[in-house]
Amino acid sequence: MEKRSLYTVLSPRLLDLYTLNGAIVVIIDVFRATSTIATALSNGARAVYPVADVDGCKTLGAALGAITAGERNGQVIEGLLHGNSPAEYPPAFIKGKELVLTTTNGTKLLHMALQQGAAEVVTGSFVNLNSVSQYLLKGDKDVILACSGWKDRFNLEDTLFAGAVVNQIGQYFSVNCDSALMAKEMYLLHQHDIKSFIRNTSHWHRLKAFGLEKDLEFCVTAGAAEVLPFYDRKSGALTALGASC
Amino acid sequence: MEKRSLYTVLSPRLLDLYTLNGAIVVIIDVFRATSTIATALSNGARAVYPVADVDGCKTLGAALGAITAGERNGQVIEGLLHGNSPAEYPPAFIKGKELVLTTTNGTKLLHMALQQGAAEVVTGSFVNLNSVSQYLLKGDKDVILACSGWKDRFNLEDTLFAGAVVNQIGQYFSVNCDSALMAKEMYLLHQHDIKSFIRNTSHWHRLKAFGLEKDLEFCVTAGAAEVLPFYDRKSGALTALGASC
Repeated sequence: MEKRSLYTVLSPRLLDLYTLNGAIVVIIDVFRATSTIATALSNGARAVYPVADVDGCKTLGAALGAITAGERNGQVIEGLLHGNSPAEYPPAFIKGKELVLTTTNGTKLLHMALQQGAAEVVTGSFVNLNSVSQYLLKGDKDVILACSGWKDRFNLEDTLFAGAVVNQIGQYFSVNCDSALMAKEMYLLHQHDIKSFIRNTSHWHRLKAFGLEKDLEFCVTAGAAEVLPFYDRKSGALTALGASC
Repeated sequence: MEKRSLYTVLSPRLLDLYTLNGAIVVIIDVFRATSTIATALSNGARAVYPVADVDGCKTLGAALGAITAGERNGQVIEGLLHGNSPAEYPPAFIKGKELVLTTTNGTKLLHMALQQGAAEVVTGSFVNLNSVSQYLLKGDKDVILACSGWKDRFNLEDTLFAGAVVNQIGQYFSVNCDSALMAKEMYLLHQHDIKSFIRNTSHWHRLKAFGLEKDLEFCVTAGAAEVLPFYDRKSGALTALGASC
């Protein structure tokens, strides 16, 4: 049987160069949207609604009676209730609740993937690495690992996570993709020093100014929130696949 | 004194995310445009005219009485005289002549850089690595290392060359750029096995079908054609900086 294809996309700007029709797209925004989504769902949130802009976040939050969340430059956006930090969503707070989330990069890319015809959309970060890899292995579709980057620029933390997935499951796919090859090599190079290596990234320098070092270290902690956030087009929500909600 | 900035751009699609005004842009298309340009100039070509399309190549070639060159899928384009291989331009053939060249990726990116306001445009590949690095060091402008990729997708060979430049001169610049950091690490990882490593790239697989393995190995041979191709907006030509032409 012919192997399925796996590609890595390094920036939202490059997404339309790949065939999303019929594919599973993994949205990756390690710092911090997809880490926060996995954490909230792992801690019992019923659903996370990713929305592309602040007004949409306020409107949907009001309609659902849900928690609204979003930051710009490390500050909670005026009119929203919470920020983008996974630490803000422990079980005692988030269990059984719904979260409406807007972020700079990850939620935008998720909506791009939907518009460009992705068959399935899930989200991934180091905190749910194994859940993502296991889901992709079980499926029957081509795989696109889509990095959110920072305002369309390449970033290392999303690439390293894509590389971690390629390292786990690449052998079962046809990988004719220089981005995936590079990502895997970068991951193998830094899998044992990832918490120190990320201090070299531009995103670290950007966010450490807001005292978010602990947040960022959590975001690269493998297995901290093992759940598979799966997007449902009908409801517009990410829910934990297999969980009752 | 504040250090100048250095950025690496991984695809033409990402070029406009960077400030080209006032910067030196190095166009990188290792397989094979910028390897061929350096080789032709190093072997005595008076000038290389990079043109974005086939019709422009024919028209300018006829007007100048120059050699026209361009390939698609490993074949010389109908109506042009030569291909994109550096091996086609030995001194006995090219010395004192002018070449009009059209390619899929590199010549397109060069014109994008001009349109987006680059102060200076030069071209680089492994064959003229030291000439590029020395020129960038001597200058007083910010530096953009611009990878042509393959039809806007990321590729490894251009990234490795950008990494070789960052490795040589990065310490003299402010490098707040994840792409440059990644490129340097990939280069350091493969500097000693580059001729075998490039056999893993998607471009190798694409071009080896046309029997171009020797060409590709030449393109990653450091120092094989040390010259600095510098674009002159007035003439529309690349000439060897410092050479009389």
